[in-house]
Amino acid sequence: MNKEKLRAVIEGNIVSGTIQFLILASAVVFVLESDSEDPQAPHFILLDSIFFGLFSIEYILRVYIEPRKRDFIFSFYGIIDLLAILPSLFLLPGFRVLRILRFLRIFRIFKATRFILAVDRLTEALNEIRRELLALVILSLMLVYLAACGIHYFERVEQPEEFGSILDSMWWAIVTLTTVGYGDVYPITPGGKLFTALVTLIGVGLIAIPSGLLASVLTEARVERKKEENEEDVENGSTESINK
Amino acid sequence: MNKEKLRAVIEGNIVSGTIQFLILASAVVFVLESDSEDPQAPHFILLDSIFFGLFSIEYILRVYIEPRKRDFIFSFYGIIDLLAILPSLFLLPGFRVLRILRFLRIFRIFKATRFILAVDRLTEALNEIRRELLALVILSLMLVYLAACGIHYFERVEQPEEFGSILDSMWWAIVTLTTVGYGDVYPITPGGKLFTALVTLIGVGLIAIPSGLLASVLTEARVERKKEENEEDVENGSTESINK
Amino acid sequence: MNKEKLRAVIEGNIVSGTIQFLILASAVVFVLESDSEDPQAPHFILLDSIFFGLFSIEYILRVYIEPRKRDFIFSFYGIIDLLAILPSLFLLPGFRVLRILRFLRIFRIFKATRFILAVDRLTEALNEIRRELLALVILSLMLVYLAACGIHYFERVEQPEEFGSILDSMWWAIVTLTTVGYGDVYPITPGGKLFTALVTLIGVGLIAIPSGLLASVLTEARVERKKEENEEDVENGSTESINK
Amino acid sequence: MNKEKLRAVIEGNIVSGTIQFLILASAVVFVLESDSEDPQAPHFILLDSIFFGLFSIEYILRVYIEPRKRDFIFSFYGIIDLLAILPSLFLLPGFRVLRILRFLRIFRIFKATRFILAVDRLTEALNEIRRELLALVILSLMLVYLAACGIHYFERVEQPEEFGSILDSMWWAIVTLTTVGYGDVYPITPGGKLFTALVTLIGVGLIAIPSGLLASVLTEARVERKKEENEEDVENGSTESINK
Repeated sequence: MNKEKLRAVIEGNIVSGTIQFLILASAVVFVLESDSEDPQAPHFILLDSIFFGLFSIEYILRVYIEPRKRDFIFSFYGIIDLLAILPSLFLLPGFRVLRILRFLRIFRIFKATRFILAVDRLTEALNEIRRELLALVILSLMLVYLAACGIHYFERVEQPEEFGSILDSMWWAIVTLTTVGYGDVYPITPGGKLFTALVTLIGVGLIAIPSGLLASVLTEARVERKKEENEEDVENGSTESINK
Repeated sequence: MNKEKLRAVIEGNIVSGTIQFLILASAVVFVLESDSEDPQAPHFILLDSIFFGLFSIEYILRVYIEPRKRDFIFSFYGIIDLLAILPSLFLLPGFRVLRILRFLRIFRIFKATRFILAVDRLTEALNEIRRELLALVILSLMLVYLAACGIHYFERVEQPEEFGSILDSMWWAIVTLTTVGYGDVYPITPGGKLFTALVTLIGVGLIAIPSGLLASVLTEARVERKKEENEEDVENGSTESINK
Repeated sequence: MNKEKLRAVIEGNIVSGTIQFLILASAVVFVLESDSEDPQAPHFILLDSIFFGLFSIEYILRVYIEPRKRDFIFSFYGIIDLLAILPSLFLLPGFRVLRILRFLRIFRIFKATRFILAVDRLTEALNEIRRELLALVILSLMLVYLAACGIHYFERVEQPEEFGSILDSMWWAIVTLTTVGYGDVYPITPGGKLFTALVTLIGVGLIAIPSGLLASVLTEARVERKKEENEEDVENGSTESINK
Repeated sequence: MNKEKLRAVIEGNIVSGTIQFLILASAVVFVLESDSEDPQAPHFILLDSIFFGLFSIEYILRVYIEPRKRDFIFSFYGIIDLLAILPSLFLLPGFRVLRILRFLRIFRIFKATRFILAVDRLTEALNEIRRELLALVILSLMLVYLAACGIHYFERVEQPEEFGSILDSMWWAIVTLTTVGYGDVYPITPGGKLFTALVTLIGVGLIAIPSGLLASVLTEARVERKKEENEEDVENGSTESINK
């Protein structure tokens, strides 16, 4: 009973809001700390101790209120919550050698996904189209591979620095097919340009499909959800506008 | 009664067309004024006075014909209409010190949204998917944050100017993940390039989802609208092609 | 009767194929002519005369077989067919002064749209969403305008060459919001970079909506078409799989 | 009977997994070989012989178990499987002159498409929209052609190196309309910039339609598939939630 009350408090607006604020503050402090000249300054140590303390209390309470503790500990959020506090331990005298691992604190922001309401819709949609996604990812990687091999063939003589190896050419392939196009590497031979024209006209479309697919499936799920709600309304007697 | 006639005139084609022309002219004049060597030239002052006068009359009439004046004044269009005239007041002798705020006149173009017929469909669609949008925005910001932290780690030694701080690296993250890719900053270390490859292949898709989602929902709403129209047709007796 | 036979010949595969080949050949010759050192070389004049002759015969025949000649002449294809032959006349002695207008021959390729089967589906879909498209185009232009004003404000002092006027800044706005990102102009001040981050995260999505919308509507029309075909099948007695 | 057992083995998880590993290994070796200083080193010859041997055995067995051998040999996978082994023969003494054709080994990775489950869904969807795709491809090529002609007209005087011929201008058109935007060529005249603004605002959308279309059709097919499954469930007696 006590646990249920505690759960209500933890999942209530005040605690949730506080945790969200702490996550954001922690992210901001991480940036300031990294960009400061003295990342070991006392105020950074102090702030990190506060985050450590509060996130630890949160973690302990979450484990405490959970009936199936093991399940929670090894769930996505359980691991994220643990990762959010562990790196701060490396400041303790005995763990100095692991201090470099403190950068793992950046994963604290994943704690925020717990509070994003539609994240489960996104993961559900991703799960729905996982086969198509896998196919598209493999095809995209094949395209990157073939594009790199092709451009290497056309440009290696003229630009040995940039396209001298297939691995180097892969950098060009990624930057081009995602349409980022920094302009640090680009073909200069007529053959390389023609090849690039063909590859981009096909490839740019291929790489854009997954996000269109996800958008479509999210909408499909929304239509489904609406229809179910309507049907429930009908069953509950509130028969409007829907023809029997 | 008089108000209703006035409303018909204001919302009629002639006045609407005139206001649209004035909004466009005002935007053009603002550009010419900013780009001229003497933005305080008499003809600019004169033109602005004309826009001020006409937009003021429009605002006063719109308030006058509105039965719930307070509601209108604090509505989106009420505020925009006010913002369209206020900045011109800063030319008056007593307000010279606020002259710099005259750039607020650029918001005059928002008055034009009143005349775009499908804007309400867009805002409705945005409202429909506000949860998914919020989730995608937060995830995108998390991605920008993680990408900036990652590239900072890989490139800070080689390119301290560009990637020396996480804040600077965020500029790279935005330019890359939106696929703008100016080419002013890009990774040069193998690790940074590999990291960029991973981040762009995932991130470019993530950032493209919202517009696909909005497009899908707009189409869904269109299908819905059509079906309703058809059903109304049926109820009105014109039963064609629709099976019982 | 004769006209009907002629129409069958003109719209038959042989003549259609020949015209398509001529359109393509004409486009290739136009490129070769423009890129050659002597665009007035005899073989170019000869080739152009051939295209002129054959397209003229085609035009005359098309007008001849059409029962409503005036309607055809002022239709899209009528105008295009005329534009495909007129510019060649400027080679005649009396029209030398208009020779510069011969570049209008590039519009010959629009003749090809007659042979693309799905073009009417595209135009139909465009017509369906014309209101949303108009709204999105106006909003995009407003965004370009506001982005240009904003970046001008932030960057004019540091980069007077590139962002000294709003008109110049519009070039940056277009190149950035379409995500082309040549890298010839980009912000360098912190304020300008922050502003760019905000504008691109919103704007890149806005400008991508129309093509997603068109794709959705094309699919919607396809579903519609399929359903109708199925219903016709049912009415024709071939009742499969569709529950009464 | 023997053949059926053999087929079960070949299409079983162990052999499939091994072949997938070999394809991946072969791709990696190809990259290492191309990037090495001595591509004819004994260990590369050895590795290639192993791939040759195993892929040959696979090919022979696949032909053996197939009842319609000719159909398989001339099918997509039959040709790919043959192409995966033929180039290695060019290492034999008598074929030294064809050694350059060994780069054909890069097509080995197409063997992997056999194992991607959703590839048939993609090809089916592509087949569904082949008419629209063809129309969009032709329109895109027309746009590239017109854009190249236009920019050539505006920029040839100022930048004869980059835009002196229409063919050169086509490189710019491709790089711009796919939004890659390397920044190696871009307009500098006011006319060229205005023309680019118009062309990109239209063209960027046009070139993005196909992938949106494919995404929509994949989702449509998914909805269809689900509905059929539900209907089958109903026919099989498991009537849940579906109103008669």
